[in-house]
Amino acid sequence: MSDKKCIYAALLGAGTVGGGVYRLVKKMKKEIPLRVGSELVIKKVLVKDASKHRDGIDKDVLTDNWEEIINDPEIQIVIELMGGTGIARTRILEALKAGKHVVTANKDLLAEHGEEIFSVARENNCDIQFEAAVAGAIPIIRPLMQNMAGDNITEIMGIVNGTTNYILTKMTEDKMGYHDALAVAQRKGYAESDPTSDVDGLDAARKMAIIAQLIYHTNVTFADVYKEGITSVMPDDIRYSGELGYVIKLVGVVKMTDGKVEVHVNPMLLEKDHPLATVRNSFNAIFVKGEAMDDAMFMGRGAGSLPTASAVLGDVMDVMRNIRLGCCNRVPVENYKETPILQIDEIKSKYFIRMKVEDRPGVLAEIAVVLGENAVGIANVSQKDTADGVADLLFIIEEVEEAHMVEACEAMRSLDCVYSIASVIRVY
Amino acid sequence: MSDKKCIYAALLGAGTVGGGVYRLVKKMKKEIPLRVGSELVIKKVLVKDASKHRDGIDKDVLTDNWEEIINDPEIQIVIELMGGTGIARTRILEALKAGKHVVTANKDLLAEHGEEIFSVARENNCDIQFEAAVAGAIPIIRPLMQNMAGDNITEIMGIVNGTTNYILTKMTEDKMGYHDALAVAQRKGYAESDPTSDVDGLDAARKMAIIAQLIYHTNVTFADVYKEGITSVMPDDIRYSGELGYVIKLVGVVKMTDGKVEVHVNPMLLEKDHPLATVRNSFNAIFVKGEAMDDAMFMGRGAGSLPTASAVLGDVMDVMRNIRLGCCNRVPVENYKETPILQIDEIKSKYFIRMKVEDRPGVLAEIAVVLGENAVGIANVSQKDTADGVADLLFIIEEVEEAHMVEACEAMRSLDCVYSIASVIRVY
Repeated sequence: MSDKKCIYAALLGAGTVGGGVYRLVKKMKKEIPLRVGSELVIKKVLVKDASKHRDGIDKDVLTDNWEEIINDPEIQIVIELMGGTGIARTRILEALKAGKHVVTANKDLLAEHGEEIFSVARENNCDIQFEAAVAGAIPIIRPLMQNMAGDNITEIMGIVNGTTNYILTKMTEDKMGYHDALAVAQRKGYAESDPTSDVDGLDAARKMAIIAQLIYHTNVTFADVYKEGITSVMPDDIRYSGELGYVIKLVGVVKMTDGKVEVHVNPMLLEKDHPLATVRNSFNAIFVKGEAMDDAMFMGRGAGSLPTASAVLGDVMDVMRNIRLGCCNRVPVENYKETPILQIDEIKSKYFIRMKVEDRPGVLAEIAVVLGENAVGIANVSQKDTADGVADLLFIIEEVEEAHMVEACEAMRSLDCVYSIASVIRVY
Repeated sequence: MSDKKCIYAALLGAGTVGGGVYRLVKKMKKEIPLRVGSELVIKKVLVKDASKHRDGIDKDVLTDNWEEIINDPEIQIVIELMGGTGIARTRILEALKAGKHVVTANKDLLAEHGEEIFSVARENNCDIQFEAAVAGAIPIIRPLMQNMAGDNITEIMGIVNGTTNYILTKMTEDKMGYHDALAVAQRKGYAESDPTSDVDGLDAARKMAIIAQLIYHTNVTFADVYKEGITSVMPDDIRYSGELGYVIKLVGVVKMTDGKVEVHVNPMLLEKDHPLATVRNSFNAIFVKGEAMDDAMFMGRGAGSLPTASAVLGDVMDVMRNIRLGCCNRVPVENYKETPILQIDEIKSKYFIRMKVEDRPGVLAEIAVVLGENAVGIANVSQKDTADGVADLLFIIEEVEEAHMVEACEAMRSLDCVYSIASVIRVY
């Protein structure tokens, strides 16, 4: 065991999470050595402008010069919290090649370049830890890679984006429209001024790509994940599906279907007593099904300065243990399989369809015939809110391949009695 | 890194969990080396009667002779699943002193002799892993010790006994009495024929003692945990508290109060939208509050052959990684603090009180005076189901020290208008 009194780290980035990590390390200064045997010293904080004052960060650790970090042999851990897939990738690869261990919260990077980064870490016998990259403060990476290492995970469903969960909660509980709910989320700091990455499901897709890679040991990237966001979810969808006993959530799904990895992010109707249905506001949650472990769910804060910092510091302390014992790269990520990815048109789902149709006898029969011709089975149908000769028709469709559903929708659209197919949303 | 193709383990016990572990190891035979680099071989299974046939377990690994295990240098991991605090303690201590690593699900033992076992493990540089001892398949030990290592945990509330959660769920949802619900639980295999350890809160108390020790780094044993079971929870308590917006659960609490460890298990009224309130049937869940991480909850199977086996195998595979890298004892349990335990009469709670009183004007005033004299504040009072001159009086009491509450109850009992105090249950 190394007798090092101090282990030195550098922080890349002093934004929300970086600042949180710096403050947390200061606060836990006395406790860290009691827990892992060495003191943790943040020797440098890399920022764009080192002359700018940053609340709570000692002036003399700030630097805008990466050379001071990469060339400092005393710095053994690089904590990357800049984000993005450009300079962050370069810095992380340089650090690993220099034998420095890396802790990161960068989901964008791992969802696109995970395989490259994990393999460079393995080659250099370095730790790469990234608990904070998926669902912030919720312990999920370590449980999946270690606690559940002896099980086959059959399915993971995640509410892994707090912004969209907040917006959908407001739409459901306060009967707001999408744009009003988004405005509230922006005012409260839950949504960015450009909310695209959240509301289009891109952020959630990145996290699901990382999860898929870990549990199926296959290279799954952001591009492999089918994505649908929440911008087309209408108050009527929420109201009507609620009457049928469902809640609409933006859900990421990873499962093994016919020997292929099924991975997608889309709005989904969940039965009201599904554990994920009770996850409200900006909370995140991940529901895991294992062959042996059965069902489990993990809920917590998916974002925020200190919650994310707590996950980062947990990783850093784990790396410190590994450094002391000379056992870095103890739990490598290795894609030892090459499982194909299921294409979106092969994915089978149940569906909720809301459509505007002509309000006269015989319309339902016409539509039912078209559905039947496309091998699409009806589990439930109801008619709502008729006015001015227009009726809202709601279907719950039996499990069917996406390709059939798309064809059926096209065929229905060509009927004169169908004014519009307002919504097509998957049902769990 | 060791190049060992195989790592050998011995299983002590071939009961529900032992049998499950054996089957799971067989099933995961090909996957284990891909995940941790070595094959896992269960070389011996220690049982009382080695001649008895056991489904799915190869006859030639069965032995009733501990010497064949403890004296076999090839066996590096001992998986203790016998349970109990007698022979299991001896075997574990012997194994650790022989330099063998131990994985156990034995909560009874760790809740009484944890400090001894953890210190012998440290002295011998051995792993002792026990994820399955608390809440079965739910990852909680590793998250608490590693993911949350950089945070101060301020409070943990756990539904950590599936039997009592099942019984309370039946009483709540199916309006059963305690004895009927217990009978159903016994028929379904969720309760033992002698249910004492579950229904009196002893099992839950063991788990909370282990959790308290881990998060506060202080020796906390079973004897330190104040315990109340569910046998005195009546259908009226469930019905009336439900009308007030609460659900009754058996909850284990660990928190830091005025610099002392507060740890107890008792029935508790939770608001219906508290995440733990939604945990139904035999599921377990643990709710964690951290200063940095904020709220998190972990839900899953707290018992059962394969769920528990999955947690055990996760630990075994973690030990295998440590053996390969020579870094066992990587995350030792160390009680580096000596924090006093809060005595039960110092514990502050809100309370729900249900009492039978004389049904006449002035009674409430008399009782209110007595409560006031004992410095007990009333948050809510309501009167129910009056019949034959007897009324049910329900109070929600403001937070008050247990000692005051006990005195107040004694004083109320001495009033002529009070026929009985039927229930006194804590409120979160």
